[in-house]
Amino acid sequence: MVSKKIRLAIIGATGYTGREAISILLNHPDVEIVHLYSLENIGDDIADVFSQFLGRVSLKIEETDLDAVVRDCNCAMLCVPHTAAMGVVAELHRNGIRVIDFSADYRLNDVAEYNATYGVKHKHAGLLKQAVYGLPELHRDKIKSSSLVANPGCYPTGAILAGAPLVKNHLVRTDSIIVDAKSGVSGAGRALNVKTLFAECNESISAYSIGSHRHQPEITQELSLLAGEKVSVLFVPHLIPVTRGILSTAYFDPVKEKSVEELQELFKEFYRDDYFVHVLPSGSMPKTGDVAMTNFCHIAITTTPTGKLVVVTAIDNLVKGASGQAVQNMNIMFGLPEEKGFS
Amino acid sequence: MVSKKIRLAIIGATGYTGREAISILLNHPDVEIVHLYSLENIGDDIADVFSQFLGRVSLKIEETDLDAVVRDCNCAMLCVPHTAAMGVVAELHRNGIRVIDFSADYRLNDVAEYNATYGVKHKHAGLLKQAVYGLPELHRDKIKSSSLVANPGCYPTGAILAGAPLVKNHLVRTDSIIVDAKSGVSGAGRALNVKTLFAECNESISAYSIGSHRHQPEITQELSLLAGEKVSVLFVPHLIPVTRGILSTAYFDPVKEKSVEELQELFKEFYRDDYFVHVLPSGSMPKTGDVAMTNFCHIAITTTPTGKLVVVTAIDNLVKGASGQAVQNMNIMFGLPEEKGFS
Amino acid sequence: MVSKKIRLAIIGATGYTGREAISILLNHPDVEIVHLYSLENIGDDIADVFSQFLGRVSLKIEETDLDAVVRDCNCAMLCVPHTAAMGVVAELHRNGIRVIDFSADYRLNDVAEYNATYGVKHKHAGLLKQAVYGLPELHRDKIKSSSLVANPGCYPTGAILAGAPLVKNHLVRTDSIIVDAKSGVSGAGRALNVKTLFAECNESISAYSIGSHRHQPEITQELSLLAGEKVSVLFVPHLIPVTRGILSTAYFDPVKEKSVEELQELFKEFYRDDYFVHVLPSGSMPKTGDVAMTNFCHIAITTTPTGKLVVVTAIDNLVKGASGQAVQNMNIMFGLPEEKGFS
Amino acid sequence: MVSKKIRLAIIGATGYTGREAISILLNHPDVEIVHLYSLENIGDDIADVFSQFLGRVSLKIEETDLDAVVRDCNCAMLCVPHTAAMGVVAELHRNGIRVIDFSADYRLNDVAEYNATYGVKHKHAGLLKQAVYGLPELHRDKIKSSSLVANPGCYPTGAILAGAPLVKNHLVRTDSIIVDAKSGVSGAGRALNVKTLFAECNESISAYSIGSHRHQPEITQELSLLAGEKVSVLFVPHLIPVTRGILSTAYFDPVKEKSVEELQELFKEFYRDDYFVHVLPSGSMPKTGDVAMTNFCHIAITTTPTGKLVVVTAIDNLVKGASGQAVQNMNIMFGLPEEKGFS
Repeated sequence: MVSKKIRLAIIGATGYTGREAISILLNHPDVEIVHLYSLENIGDDIADVFSQFLGRVSLKIEETDLDAVVRDCNCAMLCVPHTAAMGVVAELHRNGIRVIDFSADYRLNDVAEYNATYGVKHKHAGLLKQAVYGLPELHRDKIKSSSLVANPGCYPTGAILAGAPLVKNHLVRTDSIIVDAKSGVSGAGRALNVKTLFAECNESISAYSIGSHRHQPEITQELSLLAGEKVSVLFVPHLIPVTRGILSTAYFDPVKEKSVEELQELFKEFYRDDYFVHVLPSGSMPKTGDVAMTNFCHIAITTTPTGKLVVVTAIDNLVKGASGQAVQNMNIMFGLPEEKGFS
Repeated sequence: MVSKKIRLAIIGATGYTGREAISILLNHPDVEIVHLYSLENIGDDIADVFSQFLGRVSLKIEETDLDAVVRDCNCAMLCVPHTAAMGVVAELHRNGIRVIDFSADYRLNDVAEYNATYGVKHKHAGLLKQAVYGLPELHRDKIKSSSLVANPGCYPTGAILAGAPLVKNHLVRTDSIIVDAKSGVSGAGRALNVKTLFAECNESISAYSIGSHRHQPEITQELSLLAGEKVSVLFVPHLIPVTRGILSTAYFDPVKEKSVEELQELFKEFYRDDYFVHVLPSGSMPKTGDVAMTNFCHIAITTTPTGKLVVVTAIDNLVKGASGQAVQNMNIMFGLPEEKGFS
Repeated sequence: MVSKKIRLAIIGATGYTGREAISILLNHPDVEIVHLYSLENIGDDIADVFSQFLGRVSLKIEETDLDAVVRDCNCAMLCVPHTAAMGVVAELHRNGIRVIDFSADYRLNDVAEYNATYGVKHKHAGLLKQAVYGLPELHRDKIKSSSLVANPGCYPTGAILAGAPLVKNHLVRTDSIIVDAKSGVSGAGRALNVKTLFAECNESISAYSIGSHRHQPEITQELSLLAGEKVSVLFVPHLIPVTRGILSTAYFDPVKEKSVEELQELFKEFYRDDYFVHVLPSGSMPKTGDVAMTNFCHIAITTTPTGKLVVVTAIDNLVKGASGQAVQNMNIMFGLPEEKGFS
Repeated sequence: MVSKKIRLAIIGATGYTGREAISILLNHPDVEIVHLYSLENIGDDIADVFSQFLGRVSLKIEETDLDAVVRDCNCAMLCVPHTAAMGVVAELHRNGIRVIDFSADYRLNDVAEYNATYGVKHKHAGLLKQAVYGLPELHRDKIKSSSLVANPGCYPTGAILAGAPLVKNHLVRTDSIIVDAKSGVSGAGRALNVKTLFAECNESISAYSIGSHRHQPEITQELSLLAGEKVSVLFVPHLIPVTRGILSTAYFDPVKEKSVEELQELFKEFYRDDYFVHVLPSGSMPKTGDVAMTNFCHIAITTTPTGKLVVVTAIDNLVKGASGQAVQNMNIMFGLPEEKGFS
């Protein structure tokens, strides 16, 4: 794929991930944002909706028009919820538009699992085979030649990057993995909900959806692919009063004894070609504040007296966990260096 | 022990736990705070140091004078760091003062473990046998007749309350327990430290001291006592940008199959006499915000598809995790209802 | 009025001010909460809606029934929005129930100003004359004998307490007062609003409704009454990412020269009978954190090189700015010490 | 001045403004950071001190060596406190290095005022005449040809930009200006201080240094220069629990009646060449969150019923209030577009 100007449509531009995509792309020399679509604020300038864009970008928000996308663009980012993306993806894909879908609609290979997890019947199950799970650190080659990328969930990004080197190298038991994740509130989106009011979540910490979160099948799918066998993951998310950031603390039972130095080397080797992943030196621990507003993932590995391995990863849920990863995927799909346009 | 007026000295009154003890005791009808001691602000009124006390309490901060404690008081709370408490406790105890020690100096039964954990040689090892670990939910009877109570650490309080009913009833494996704890910043105290500056920990989440935190031996000791065998606990603390609160997410491998309803009943039974512990109904999850400024511990038990049991507890680290528990212990030691004086 | 058991109905129990009223009253020895009413959660226990009440209070939330209030209660707190309170107040008042109305419906003496400010026509204008503006520091005597108290707005409480001693003593120009107020987010209530989502207001500071906020007429009314002439106040509110607290920075042009010591004395004299107001010593400045969860107002007076006087007040918007002040008013109405029941 | 590669030394690299300068310059195509100096962490890589730089910049922190600066660099940023910068600036300037001084040492034209404000005797008073106050919106032309730029304080930047168009056009009284500023905690720097501990300033709002803050003379100096007469400003700073951001609410008494539309036009005209200043449309108010991590200043003008004018500005204190403004100044000094390198 030769590099060329990317003419982009963003569908769902007035949510947090749409806003973040625009923000990242402000500096991308090879991308022109051609259309911004939303269900709200039709006719307003994006800078009127998000004052942070004043004087930096001026684009009208339009009512979604897929014909216009097909006519004017060669790439679309869908920043809309699951089920809302399903048909749009299919139509754009059929018309030759490269699609990066932020929703869960094309992430799961197994349509039955999708139907069970999201409580709807997938209407374009045939397309699942053509979708690539857009975690570049695992599927870079497939993404290069794909025209339909399912951008991973925020939680799965942090969880999978924590476990991938271990399960790939058969170093840990695959039936006892735990991922205890702590997420900022922007992960819940901009929809109205009492639980995400400032006065409800400020100065409070809580767990939710223990073992039943919709992101669990994604994590299991990708780690199972790496392991070559069915992996069992217990995923436990927590809501933390920060705007951005996910810290994932992953627990593993090792099946082979390795020193922490050996494990660090193994992680570094696994991620040696990955610009956005950093394995921290001993004594250093990931902080979500250190990766805020960036597409980086920081990783630390710790061995413990009780035998368990602990891997901690930190990402910005809106960047590496969503819009940044989408830009990274877009860069790969268009033959650009994957860090292109990132500050 | 008959109830009588408690004449209290607080040693270490200008730290967060000293301040919190005063705050709780403002309304206690049976306590008179007789002396406030500190290394700082000698001669100032406590209301000058902490404006929250203006018009509510007026007491001079004095240089520590143990003779005065012996002369004027029948109870002392030691809100000073480990090693600083060691000798003071011994002297007050020798002179018949009931002591509630907030430090770790008398928490561990095994002096070798104390020495290894805190890197000093205990100077009053003989006294360890007389000290009671002040978690009323486990040791109420011993506390009643004790004159030396080692007030538990903040993290151990949340962790032990999560696991106690399970290990006591031999329902879980004792070699694979994980406690993933999330704490507010006040847990680090009022000492100067770059890591606890607002601009360092705001908008950031991080783990620290994985498997090597000083509170781990306490957790292990108490759960082992309940289990009747050596328990292995992996304790992983995290720093969260809230002022108050600890949420502990504890992971267990069950050895007997129990429904979530059976487990809830078992927890309720275990804590049936404990005013300050609440087992939440199904569908409800603990939030640290719900227990902030109170001495309560909220608990939820969840069974999961992968087989693991997850128990979540929420406490206020400064109240049930420190000063509130101390007041609860004091009430018990003086024959008062343990909720006396709490709002 | 002789003291007797207060049998209270709280109408609007599931908002922040209703919750706070319950929380404060948990410890009030002379109050029995008889009915909790709301539009939501009918049939639920209040402890199911707000887990903080678990094990501390158990009361069913009922559909509002004014006949039951008249039959079972002698006092009602109305924690509902303006216009919703108007008719309920009138009916309860007609039936001899002492009413404390949290809304703005009975705060303004001038019905034309009410109609203009709130954009509705007042339906019980005749009752305005019988309502007392419930700021005890100004109207304690009238409150004692009143059966209809209009509980002040949160912003006016902080603003009026800052200016009252100055305008009463004719020490400042009455045409140039500025109140720059900074409020926590709970002041916006529990209603759904994009602007009060955590991810919108965290890590941001903003002004709103400059010179046009609905609380401005209240401030003007009360300061004008004190001054004996029409006072002009510019009120400028700001939204700050804290849950609780209002800091009001009030600017005055003095007409008589007074030293800061003289002014402090004057403020202390003005508030000499007011348990909940503290004039801070020189060098000390109010912090909202110092009055959080309390009914206190802290005040500091500063003279400046440019000649202006600056008075800063700090209150907890949910306590002294709402529910705590309501309890204070209730105590006064029932002949109790006004600090009764407060911790 | 022709554009050429800028070889930069940053002196004081391990504080917040040093860190921020590095962060901004990561993407600047014309700047090479040649030396990083600090009093701490000598020999460490900057990415070891600030993990956010991992994989993005690798530079050793050195002991300050002014000879090396003279030998290797053509520009220096001094991110050190006042008085510490004084001599270093003089020496670098004497040796032909273009200097951008973040401290207050060369901001005030009047040496007597400097001495009085900072409590020291200026040792290089002769150099004050050559220093340019580095607010590009006021002094762009002088900055172009200057080799010594005194980078403005964070508070003065927001305050002066609020008032400049009004005082320049003689539209307001110059004896009654008030600036009520609200700042994030990073403004206090990374030095250890109980007042900036998380648990002290979280969930609290307070005022400090009312009328006596060191930044007041800067504000007065610049507004007086614009007015052509001595201007009197009352400056009142507040500490707000956010990491970044200053919101300045400035109050003016107009001497000529202007509509808000006229005033907006006047502000737009005044700032017509200023890329980083945006006058918001009617109905829109500045939020510090909207300018966080950017070099922009947002401004809104409001007329009020009481006659006063209110101008609100929002900046990021670490960017437009410090390091971003320094980069803007550097760009101007080296003949580059002033927005060069900013994302």
